[in-house]
Order: sequence, then C-alpha cells, then structure tokens
Amino acid sequence: MSLLLAPLLVSVVVDAQLVSLAGMYGSLHSPNFPEPYPRETELHWNISVPDGFQIKLYFSHFDMEPSYLCEYDYVKVETEGEVLALFCGTQETDTEVVPAQQVITSPRNSLSVLFSSDFSNEERYSGFMAHYSAVDIDECNDRSDEDLLCDHFCHNYIGGYYCSCRYGYLLHTDNRTCRVECSDAVFRERSGILSSVDFPAPYPKSSECLYRIEVELGFRLRIQFDPTFDVEDHPDVICPYDYVKIRAGSREFGPFCGDQPPGLIETDSNNVTVIFHSDNSGENLGWSLTYTATGSQCPVPEIPPNGLLNPVQSGYSFKDHILFSCEPGYRILKDGEFLDHFQVDCQADGSWSSSAPQCQKTDSTRR
Amino acid sequence: MSLLLAPLLVSVVVDAQLVSLAGMYGSLHSPNFPEPYPRETELHWNISVPDGFQIKLYFSHFDMEPSYLCEYDYVKVETEGEVLALFCGTQETDTEVVPAQQVITSPRNSLSVLFSSDFSNEERYSGFMAHYSAVDIDECNDRSDEDLLCDHFCHNYIGGYYCSCRYGYLLHTDNRTCRVECSDAVFRERSGILSSVDFPAPYPKSSECLYRIEVELGFRLRIQFDPTFDVEDHPDVICPYDYVKIRAGSREFGPFCGDQPPGLIETDSNNVTVIFHSDNSGENLGWSLTYTATGSQCPVPEIPPNGLLNPVQSGYSFKDHILFSCEPGYRILKDGEFLDHFQVDCQADGSWSSSAPQCQKTDSTRR
Repeated sequence: MSLLLAPLLVSVVVDAQLVSLAGMYGSLHSPNFPEPYPRETELHWNISVPDGFQIKLYFSHFDMEPSYLCEYDYVKVETEGEVLALFCGTQETDTEVVPAQQVITSPRNSLSVLFSSDFSNEERYSGFMAHYSAVDIDECNDRSDEDLLCDHFCHNYIGGYYCSCRYGYLLHTDNRTCRVECSDAVFRERSGILSSVDFPAPYPKSSECLYRIEVELGFRLRIQFDPTFDVEDHPDVICPYDYVKIRAGSREFGPFCGDQPPGLIETDSNNVTVIFHSDNSGENLGWSLTYTATGSQCPVPEIPPNGLLNPVQSGYSFKDHILFSCEPGYRILKDGEFLDHFQVDCQADGSWSSSAPQCQKTDSTRR
Repeated sequence: MSLLLAPLLVSVVVDAQLVSLAGMYGSLHSPNFPEPYPRETELHWNISVPDGFQIKLYFSHFDMEPSYLCEYDYVKVETEGEVLALFCGTQETDTEVVPAQQVITSPRNSLSVLFSSDFSNEERYSGFMAHYSAVDIDECNDRSDEDLLCDHFCHNYIGGYYCSCRYGYLLHTDNRTCRVECSDAVFRERSGILSSVDFPAPYPKSSECLYRIEVELGFRLRIQFDPTFDVEDHPDVICPYDYVKIRAGSREFGPFCGDQPPGLIETDSNNVTVIFHSDNSGENLGWSLTYTATGSQCPVPEIPPNGLLNPVQSGYSFKDHILFSCEPGYRILKDGEFLDHFQVDCQADGSWSSSAPQCQKTDSTRR
C-alpha cells in the first residue's frame, strides 16, 4: 500500500504521517530506527488484513522516553476506536507499561498503531521495532457464544470456513443448516405411524416436509398425535417458527406447535397432507402421529318381516356386507325373482348398495 | 485443477481415475456419494498445497465393506510413498480401522488418497466423505531439532517465516544469522582492552571484525589475551570456522581458535590490526585482549668523567629524557658552548637525540 501524507495538522509542532499496511505480515518501527527517534513527531500505521483473519502484533525492541502515564512520548495500539495498549518508557513501572513479550491480538481484521514524541527528550531513545502477521480465525472453535455457526459440521480453512451435513442431510441454501428431503413418502395403508425425522431426537432445521396419506375413497382418516410433542413456538405469536399443519380436502387443521399435542383429529377425508415446517434454529424433539382410516357408516337396516340378517351388528361401515335370508316357509322376493339369499354392501358414500328385500310366504297351495 | 483420466490399466476390472486437488481446502467423496459406491473402481486424489503448509484430512462419513486387513474395499492415505492410514469397514475391529474422529496431518505439503473397491459387495455401502485444508506450518515453533531457524528472532506468518535481529545487530544476507558492524573502531591510546562483541557472552555470527590499534611511531604493541578464550574450532582442520588473526606490518600471528588463548604476542609494530572472523553457527564465548605500547629501547648512556646523569635507570625507552650535569668545579662543554645542563631524548628509533656531552674543569686560573 502507498504511503499517504496526511494534511498538516493545525498544531504546528507535529508532522503527522499515515502509513497503510495491507500485507499478510510486516514490520514497523519508530522514525529513524535504529537511530534515536526525532522529537515532535507523530506517525500512524493502519494495519488491515482480509476478513477471516486477526492481527497479531508484538515488539522486538522498545526504548522510549518514560513519563507519568506516558503523557510525553508513547506508542498507542487501537482498534475501532478502542485503546488496546499504551506503551512508553524502558522498563515496567507503576505508571509506565512497556510491551515486553506481550502479543496484542486484534479482535477483528484491523489495528492501528500511533507513535508520538513530544518537543523534548532528556536522553536519546532508540524507539521501537514491531512485527505483525495475519492469523487465521478458527471460526469453528473460536466462538464464545452458543450460536453454532454450522448445524452439523464446521470446517475451518485459512481465511474462512464452510459447513456440511451428516449423511442423509442436505445443506440448505443458507450454507449453514442441514435440511432433509422428506416429501416423497405417500402412506397408502389403512393405518400407520409417521413422525418428524429422527423423532424423538431433534428434527432437522430448514426443512419443509409434506407427508401424504391416501386411502381408498370411502374411508375417513383420523389422526391421533403422540403425547410427546415438541415443536418450536413463541409465547405471543402463533407458531411463527416451526409448525405442523394438516390439510384434508378444503379443511385445514393447525398450525400446531408448542409442547402439547393437538387432540384427536377427525378429518372426514380419505386424502390428508401433513405439512411440517422447520426454520433454521432450535433443537426441538418433534412429533409423531398415528393415523387410522375408518369407513363411511351405513344405517342399520330394518329387518323385513319374517326376514333374517347376518351379521347382526350395532353399526356397519364401508366394505361391510349383509346377507339377507328368510324364515322357513318364506323366500326372498327381489325384483320379481325368488332367491334364497340376497347380499347388500355398505358403500363408500354410507349408503347400502340396495334396499332391503321382502320375504314372501312360499305358496304351498299352488302346488 | 482438472480431472485427468488415466490410461486404462492392463487389469480389466478397474477404472482408475486421478483427481488433482490444489486448492487451500476442499472435500472428496467416494464415487456416486451419497449413493452406494460402485464395484471394481479405483479413484486417486492427489492433494497439494503450497510450500509452508501442511494438509489436514479428516472424514465426516465412512461406510465401506469390512474385510480382513481391508483387503477388499479400502481407502488408503499416503504421502511420499509412505502409508499414513488404511481404512475400511463400518466400525473399528481388530483388523479393520475406520477413520472416526481421526485427523491425518501430512508431514509436508502433499497427500494422496486412494479409494478402491473390489468386484463384489455383500451389501450396499455408502462410501465416504472427507475434508481437507491447508494448515500453516509454524516454522518458528514446530522444529523438533536443535538447529534454530533464526539466530535471534523468528517471525512466523501464514505460508512462511522471516528472521530479525536484536537491537544493534544486522541481518546477514543469509536472512538467518545476525552480524554486527564491528570494523569502525580505531584504538589510539597506549594501552587498552578490546574483545569480541558481547564478550563473555557468545559473539555474533557471520561477522568480520577489524579492530585497528594505532600508536605513535616508536612504540611497539604487545598483546596479551585473557585466559577466557573460546573460539569455534575443529579437531582436525586449523580454525576452519571462526578465528582471530593479528596483522602487524608484514607479520601475521594466528589464526587462533579453540579454548586456549595464544601466549604473549610482541608485534614489534606500532600499527596492528586484530581480525576476527565468525561463521554462521556456533555459540562460543569469544575473546578479550589487553594491548600495551612499549617504546623503543635506547642504550644506557655512559656517564662522562666528572659528569652526572638524571634520572639513573636500568633502561630507557622512547620519550624518556636524560639530563646531564657536571660535578662542582666542572661545566658541560657541548659544541663549543659551556652549559649547566644538557638534555638528550630517547628517540623513536632507539637512539639518543645527541651523544653524551663532556665535563670541562672550570678554568679558575683564567679569572
């Protein structure tokens, strides 16, 4: 970087110079070093390194005029307006600090050093020699806060880091969280269990899961959640982060979140989609549900006079059959035909496939 | 770097591929990952990073066919022909090693990884995912041998290091050792002490010191070394590394080295150069010498009859004076003139400035 000459300050005693250092390492020293430094001089170094690095600064030689609290000559190390160190003198005292073996590390990627000498020195002081170098920040390990950079794996490299995911997960476009592909499953059995991925271990972040349950027309799906239910919620806003929703035809149940499962859900539909959305944070356990399909209910048929019905049940549902027959001396008459038996089926819409037949006395007199 | 297709091997069962990885970080995985890897496949990665870096390699997923001593499917990590690791299986056994949390560090700046699968797998294995990154070598601290990289200060930076010297020293053109400027001094006093820099602490390396002693013509310099004498030597070769030499006119004394000081040296000269040469290694204490200048000796003069001489000494040397006078009743007669006193000087060449005068009886009869 170039050597920039700052405009002369209003103060007449100081020649202020600004030097920009942008290399990955380097050194800086007092004016005229190793000869004694001049009086009434200010020299300012701005050290900057790329993002992803810190700056390490230390002194290999230090010999400056001592003064109470370093008010005469001094070297000041600053970053973003904060003073990290103020040095003067030739040895440590109660009021003067020398750098000695101290290594100063910048919190971020810039550091400034100011050398200042006043109008007089009682002796000749040789000044200082300092060295700096960029140091890689290990983003994966250096964080003091709890907020993990990467959902699963963090990989540090010189100047940066990247995240990756455990086997079976995919890195989200936020390059941080690990999502799952979870929308392919279609459940066609009449009953089953489905749950958030890894349940009851915490579910994946940044995922949008669609679970479809499709059973035959005529069945109605009923959903019962497991008592273990833990979906990230908010005390004031309804499920702003993660939620479960159930869509059944034009009806929608939910969103559900929090630590209490929703009650039994009767969907009245044979076609249900369970939608689960998770955002990019949180460690909640998720949910599990059991679904069962129940057929449409057909009315209990009236038994015709002298007729018999098998099986006799308190209720009938889709796919149930009833066989009608008649008492001895009677036969079934249906659509002008005499039959021994007649079967009716409980249909998808909850109606019987046919009305009940009649029992006709066998006409022994005709014989 | 480009993907290079190696020529087909003679073996018909293996498609061998070579992948060169030259980035500062990256990842590699088994073919088709995360799908199961194919059979009869070899894949070779050559990872290289710049000088001044090592390579860190670790696995985030590993699932390969187990076999006794990994003779079927395996991942082999090598560097410069040396096998650093051989992995197979899905969990650690007596004969199969999985990478688990192990981090493999290359001794130098290259590493190669070989994936190999044989003609059959009893199950489907998902293979592996691995990550590598360049790691800076801290040349200043990582060396296990005693041979210091830098004579005084070592400064590590990412990708390299440099040396610097303590205040008062200069970095030699070897960029490693610290020399001194030590040839400016001229000693003009009639006696003095001179020594190697920092004596009796080890003397600087890579230095060529010329110390000149110049006293007035007529003095002869005599040199006595201090008993503490320690200059790097060699059991068989005479002073091949470091040495002291003394040049006095056309005469030369030395070279001297080892742990015994040379004896007293009478140079017979008023103009002596002490030459001290040090090479770029060794921690020897050096030497110190005291020089004294002694004047040329004049012969003890004969006392003329009835004469007196002051002072009377056993010997006289350059710059000494003798005052001649005569017994009462006599006067000095020199060059036809009567005198009360006559002075002769011992000269630089060891001769008297004049011959001795005569004492003549005062001729009282003439009065």
